Amino acid sequence: MNASTKAYEELLIRLKNTALLASCSAVLEWDEQTYLPPEGAEHRANQLALLAGMVHEQATNPEIGNLLLELESNSSSIDDVFEQANIREARHEYDRATKLPRRLVEELSRVATLSHHAWVQARKNNRFKDFLPWLEQMIDLKREQASATGYQGKNAYDALLDEYEPGATSEMIEQAFIPLRNELVSLVSAIKNSGVTPDTSILTRKYPVEKQREFSVSAAEAIGFRFDAGRLDIAAHPFCSGIGPGDCRLTTRYDEHHFPGAFFGTLHEAGHGIYEQGLCKEHFGTPLGSSTSLGIHESQSRMWENLVGRSHAFWDYFYRPAQKLFPEALGNVDQGAFYRAINDVRPSFIRVEADEVTYNLHIMLRFELEKALISGDLKPADLEAAWNEIFFEYFGITPDTSANGCLQDVHWSAGLIGYFPTYALGNMYAAQFFIAAEKELGDLSQLIARGEFVPLKEWLNQNIHQRGKLFRANRLVEVVAGESLSHEPLIAQLQNKYSELYNL
Amino acid sequence: MNASTKAYEELLIRLKNTALLASCSAVLEWDEQTYLPPEGAEHRANQLALLAGMVHEQATNPEIGNLLLELESNSSSIDDVFEQANIREARHEYDRATKLPRRLVEELSRVATLSHHAWVQARKNNRFKDFLPWLEQMIDLKREQASATGYQGKNAYDALLDEYEPGATSEMIEQAFIPLRNELVSLVSAIKNSGVTPDTSILTRKYPVEKQREFSVSAAEAIGFRFDAGRLDIAAHPFCSGIGPGDCRLTTRYDEHHFPGAFFGTLHEAGHGIYEQGLCKEHFGTPLGSSTSLGIHESQSRMWENLVGRSHAFWDYFYRPAQKLFPEALGNVDQGAFYRAINDVRPSFIRVEADEVTYNLHIMLRFELEKALISGDLKPADLEAAWNEIFFEYFGITPDTSANGCLQDVHWSAGLIGYFPTYALGNMYAAQFFIAAEKELGDLSQLIARGEFVPLKEWLNQNIHQRGKLFRANRLVEVVAGESLSHEPLIAQLQNKYSELYNL
Repeated sequence: MNASTKAYEELLIRLKNTALLASCSAVLEWDEQTYLPPEGAEHRANQLALLAGMVHEQATNPEIGNLLLELESNSSSIDDVFEQANIREARHEYDRATKLPRRLVEELSRVATLSHHAWVQARKNNRFKDFLPWLEQMIDLKREQASATGYQGKNAYDALLDEYEPGATSEMIEQAFIPLRNELVSLVSAIKNSGVTPDTSILTRKYPVEKQREFSVSAAEAIGFRFDAGRLDIAAHPFCSGIGPGDCRLTTRYDEHHFPGAFFGTLHEAGHGIYEQGLCKEHFGTPLGSSTSLGIHESQSRMWENLVGRSHAFWDYFYRPAQKLFPEALGNVDQGAFYRAINDVRPSFIRVEADEVTYNLHIMLRFELEKALISGDLKPADLEAAWNEIFFEYFGITPDTSANGCLQDVHWSAGLIGYFPTYALGNMYAAQFFIAAEKELGDLSQLIARGEFVPLKEWLNQNIHQRGKLFRANRLVEVVAGESLSHEPLIAQLQNKYSELYNL
Repeated sequence: MNASTKAYEELLIRLKNTALLASCSAVLEWDEQTYLPPEGAEHRANQLALLAGMVHEQATNPEIGNLLLELESNSSSIDDVFEQANIREARHEYDRATKLPRRLVEELSRVATLSHHAWVQARKNNRFKDFLPWLEQMIDLKREQASATGYQGKNAYDALLDEYEPGATSEMIEQAFIPLRNELVSLVSAIKNSGVTPDTSILTRKYPVEKQREFSVSAAEAIGFRFDAGRLDIAAHPFCSGIGPGDCRLTTRYDEHHFPGAFFGTLHEAGHGIYEQGLCKEHFGTPLGSSTSLGIHESQSRMWENLVGRSHAFWDYFYRPAQKLFPEALGNVDQGAFYRAINDVRPSFIRVEADEVTYNLHIMLRFELEKALISGDLKPADLEAAWNEIFFEYFGITPDTSANGCLQDVHWSAGLIGYFPTYALGNMYAAQFFIAAEKELGDLSQLIARGEFVPLKEWLNQNIHQRGKLFRANRLVEVVAGESLSHEPLIAQLQNKYSELYNL
């Protein structure tokens, strides 16, 4: 074994051990959201803080830096593209972790906790100004974080974006967002003026929770989520946690009088879960065994939720079982009416309740604002006015309250700045991947209508999941879809689908 | 702050941090038994091995040894009995942890895993000889363990016992077990010859699982288990896990056609849980915030399960609710018949299904045999013959199969030798504590019959739980009950109860 091989193996052992320890935290975090008794919250916080400290210590161990230097100095002798990718991304993660001074990490964590509490109260009381001092502190800290980690080009925002979408830049995102926005604003306006208004009241009839669970599980299983290597539980805020090989957990929440919430929520989380379950077990804990980026992750959840789950073909297969399980709610409803109801498009205030078309506008609004906050072009004190102004421009309505406006999301209070765009990137990537899959597999709607989900799932496994971080997201989409990030497939898909639905 | 105070505080910080890390393992172990998807088992084993190694490293850090030496050399200046107890028990745990060579720890763990698998197969196939080679290895390793940790007196077995019941010796246990055994054998024989045979078929009627859960939860809550700081879930092997302050979890299993299993199982685990919930939060992670011993722990579970739960008074309060919840099974059964059925006594092969009277004989049999295995007086090859011989002597019947005989329990395969006697110690301690409680609180059956469980629970909190490891078990019973370990209260209680039930 030569020195490089030895250094590479030592590096992998360190990365895998750190990931193994971090995966213990993941179990405790899942448990915190699902089964933790209320009185156990304080002890759980102590446990998680201890593990976080230990993980950080391992991830920033100078020995990793030494191993990376050794490998980089011999990089000409490493001709394996997989090894190259592991080294490249290990360096990226090590630099991110070590460049932040400990004081800043602790300050960010402390302010995030306090700021989150302040946000909860401010939203409850509908008072933006109660949250403002915390937002100001948080923006200052995030700007400091951006300087510490550094960035190419002129946008400090890119340094934050990089945490969630490695290698992405605001310029690249803007190139897709600007035309996407123009097209979406026209489409929303055309839909609004179409005079067609689906009857959505059928979705708020009585759907017994136990039956909702049964139906959600059967659909998640059908599209390929493995319940022998995963679970579905209840949590207030739905999420997917890929704990480790063979253990991926979804959560959802049920409302007896709202069918889409739990059902499409479960499909969405199952999409994330299929990605996690599709990662290479033998690479667990290394970049090659980890998901590419949040944007790519979101492309998987959105594809199963929207491109598959809200398609006409999907309900060709699933509508009969749905009627059988919910005879009271759907017995006298024909499939067409149901299909129109689950694809109702209308401007609304709340992002997480938005339809497939307007959703992306909610994201672009946030992207514009957080970029301006980080560059300094927008003062936190002016955020609410700016929010309402752009909201009117995009949607033609103005939020009636702060809670329905700029106070609605948890992200900024928790320091998650640069996270929002990954949701819309996911929608664009999903449409690009879907076309690429059809090129190979033929008309997917025919397969979907027969309940044949395996070909698409396996295509995603091979082309996306099993590659881990071999490529960055922007390169992955080129390799898989033969083109770089583009808004066109998404717009084409939406125009096509909604022209038919709204007689445009 | 003088040097001793500083050293004491440093010691506490180290103990608490180690306990905090160990409590992360406890969450993962609970999850393994309740919600882990089957495919996640291998990753979970890796997680637990990692944490176990880190906990062991922290618990054996030489700095703890240095701090203890410093504190012990100044012990004359420490006049606080609580500090003295923490130092005494920290020394005891540190010595146990450091005296075992790492090789032996790893070998014990490796053989336990393999031996457990061999035991599962051997029990399934009813073949003691398939398990024998593993038992031989395990006994050798446990003898080696006993030499490594050392023991006073002549019995190597005491070194193993000490792990579960610190300070106890086989001599002390024998002094109680020998007379207890004689009395029990007579009592069992008298019951057998009484001609009274309760109708136990009423307990195997249909008891819907959801109702069983509801009833078990309401009883556990009534006796004082706090569900805002705990849970009740399903597991194949029922247990109680005190994860940390505010978080204690019980498990049980339901059989629609066997009422006592889940109900008395839940009361039993709730008894353990009330102990865990009664420990002092501020002492978490130190001996003063930990339970005294397994024997004392078992005294709490047995007291609530048997002395309270199987008493006539308990059903004066709970029988009406039971009839209401299970009208099909109990509608036409009077309380007396139900009371007799749940207190049916008869010799049987399986320990975990044994009644309150014969249970202790099952324990004594195991105690005799494991002592002889460790001393070398009994060869593992002769275990089955010896088991069957003593079994006939105690019960008047001979096991029909190995699975119903010496292969029935998991303990020996897992290396848990010296553990069994704590079950019978628990029964004796429970009877002693119960009498002591009655001296202060008056006739407990009157309180129980009115559903007033708080006085007994709070008495246990104050006299036992909140003391942690301030006293060793043998001293605690002297302080609380005014006498050392004795079989007499238990025998008196059983004779009294069963003379009435069986017209003796």
